[in-house]
Amino acid sequence: MSRWAEWFAEQRAAREEAGLQRTLRPRGADEDVVDLAGNDYLGLSGHPDVRKAAADAALSWGAGAGASRLVTGTTTLHADLERELAEFTERAAALVFSTGYQANLSAVSALADKHSLIVSDAHVHASLIDAARLSRAAIEVVGHNDVAAVRAALAGAGDRRTIVLTESIFSVLGDTAPLVDLAAACADHEALLVVDEAHGIGVAGDGGRGLVHAHGLADQPHVVMTATQSKSLGAMGGAVLGPVELIDHLTNRARPFIFDTGLAPASTAGALTALRLLRRRPDLPPRIHQRGGELADRLGVPRSAGAVLSVPMTSPRAAVSAQAAALAAGVRVGCFRPPSVPDGISRLRITSRIGLDDERWARAVDVLVGVVDDHRRQS
Amino acid sequence: MSRWAEWFAEQRAAREEAGLQRTLRPRGADEDVVDLAGNDYLGLSGHPDVRKAAADAALSWGAGAGASRLVTGTTTLHADLERELAEFTERAAALVFSTGYQANLSAVSALADKHSLIVSDAHVHASLIDAARLSRAAIEVVGHNDVAAVRAALAGAGDRRTIVLTESIFSVLGDTAPLVDLAAACADHEALLVVDEAHGIGVAGDGGRGLVHAHGLADQPHVVMTATQSKSLGAMGGAVLGPVELIDHLTNRARPFIFDTGLAPASTAGALTALRLLRRRPDLPPRIHQRGGELADRLGVPRSAGAVLSVPMTSPRAAVSAQAAALAAGVRVGCFRPPSVPDGISRLRITSRIGLDDERWARAVDVLVGVVDDHRRQS
Ligand SMILES: Cc1ncc(COP(=O)(O)O)c(C=O)c1O
Ligand SMILES: Cc1ncc(COP(=O)(O)O)c(C=O)c1O
Repeated sequence: MSRWAEWFAEQRAAREEAGLQRTLRPRGADEDVVDLAGNDYLGLSGHPDVRKAAADAALSWGAGAGASRLVTGTTTLHADLERELAEFTERAAALVFSTGYQANLSAVSALADKHSLIVSDAHVHASLIDAARLSRAAIEVVGHNDVAAVRAALAGAGDRRTIVLTESIFSVLGDTAPLVDLAAACADHEALLVVDEAHGIGVAGDGGRGLVHAHGLADQPHVVMTATQSKSLGAMGGAVLGPVELIDHLTNRARPFIFDTGLAPASTAGALTALRLLRRRPDLPPRIHQRGGELADRLGVPRSAGAVLSVPMTSPRAAVSAQAAALAAGVRVGCFRPPSVPDGISRLRITSRIGLDDERWARAVDVLVGVVDDHRRQS
Repeated sequence: MSRWAEWFAEQRAAREEAGLQRTLRPRGADEDVVDLAGNDYLGLSGHPDVRKAAADAALSWGAGAGASRLVTGTTTLHADLERELAEFTERAAALVFSTGYQANLSAVSALADKHSLIVSDAHVHASLIDAARLSRAAIEVVGHNDVAAVRAALAGAGDRRTIVLTESIFSVLGDTAPLVDLAAACADHEALLVVDEAHGIGVAGDGGRGLVHAHGLADQPHVVMTATQSKSLGAMGGAVLGPVELIDHLTNRARPFIFDTGLAPASTAGALTALRLLRRRPDLPPRIHQRGGELADRLGVPRSAGAVLSVPMTSPRAAVSAQAAALAAGVRVGCFRPPSVPDGISRLRITSRIGLDDERWARAVDVLVGVVDDHRRQS
């Protein structure tokens, strides 16, 4: 066996041993399960208007953007989505990317370089961690939500340009960042604050405008917001929002923007229509919290600031088997296992969703309460 | 002005000074220009069957995949696309990503780590350069297509796991890599060879199967192929193709795969239908070369192995003004300027395209000959 074949085999054996081997399971278009695993919190991916907008865009524009955004990959759909995302969040300007992952890679890697210091919360998403690495900046990881540690790191930065990374609502634990204090710390030290609103937009703040907006930070030029169109907007793609100078800089310098084909017209139009629906229906986001609160109480876990509830499990294997039990009873939930958990604790990941009728939701809650009770009895 | 505001202003001034400032120009759905700037070489993005497949997928599946591929983001469309891409290229297995960029990031960063050595051709695409950086491996950049230098680097690797990066057809200069010799060098040194076929699939080799296939390397387990669905397949997304062990490894370890929402159903279905069209029409790729050859001869530049012709210009500004002259005459072409050129020389970037009737093509060729002649007279 060659060197690499040996390495693949070793790596696989170690995953099997630890209960961490993953395989892909394709789903059909009309499976009859309640999906509480995905991030389509508002049920907009399947909303008739969103489906139709995506389909119409594919028919009139073709299946692809055809080139980089800077060549011919920018359609009027992209421009509309950028303008309306900026209006909605009350930020000066926006730039749309192919994925939320690439929005984060771009924001950080086009701002920081080897003369910079990045101060990162310990719980930020993989895409922000990779972004920091890609930038070649010095990286200081500070304790989760530890504003004093952020201040100390910034105070020690000397004359390096500094950037602080956080999420508005953290993807695994569902807690929030102290954005006002972080923004003040950054202002005091002339640092930029990058806030990933992937789980905030469409979920938190006034009508789903996110927490940067809720905290009155939307007009602060040193606050950089990143977002994704793949979660509450039910489509695909990412965005960076902030001052015009920032957007101009990213347009010219962000490599995962410049050297990547533009977001497909169907995804762009789907996100745009979902955003318009959200703007007309400020009553939708609060309903996520109503359902999420009810579910958290029934499961005996803390309520989440976002749409995702985390239920700690005793091991990766226990998490996988609880997930299988829920699926057997018609409810699909997710499962967080290393390396997707900042603290190494495996969890069920359950999405509070609207766009399901009350009866299906109630049935799903009962199933999950049963599964989690069983798990607790067995451990 | 704050520190960052100052930095943005300085950076912008430097770009303006160098003629490198870029802005986005949205295009409408039915502009009457001949587009020789994009990468939709076969014209499949706008093919009626491809448009319809993308639209139908949006209608039946919704606008988004809803979650990571490992959660619920894998539909039967993704599985079909993976199987058919692997069949077409005669590779054992395939994995589909949201973008070609993320396919490259994933392939390299999930294979190499700080105990590895990456040997990279000097002309590889930004996504492969970023991928190498992200991996934290030691990186040795060797001269373009210099097999002896690759061998020397591999010989000096000691007991590190080694990976060589190249493209089958290079994106800027349109030349090809010595794949057979590189694969032999890698076999001799137990290295993996990563070949980016972004500009090879649908363009080169038997029926557009790419150059890994053309050189009889499709069954070599040490050859890793990456590809994109955003160019000749007219849609969006990327892929990695190779042995089952590799695909299993990436599924479990590639962060830009695990922590990213799956490719939207419309894009997946669009690419799948484009691939099926390509498989039924092996006569299409050769027509790219016929038109490309004619255009190269008329412009007095070397023929390209791929679909992209590069015409050197005397400066970034001259390139931009030649591009504007072509557009004024109804032909959109691209423009390569630093940082998108490995040698710093600005160029017009002209795509040889089919899916245009002969008359429009002939008119476009005349326009471009005129524009390039004017440029040569003025310099
Ligand atoms: C916090 C956070 N940021 C960024 C992303 C990446 O977004 P996308 O899936 O659109 O690439 C995700 C999830 O996928 C996320 O949870
Ligand atoms: C050689 C090469 N590799 C990878 C990519 C990235 O592919 P995508 O645009 O699908 O992200 C591109 C161009 O965009 C490319 O030219």
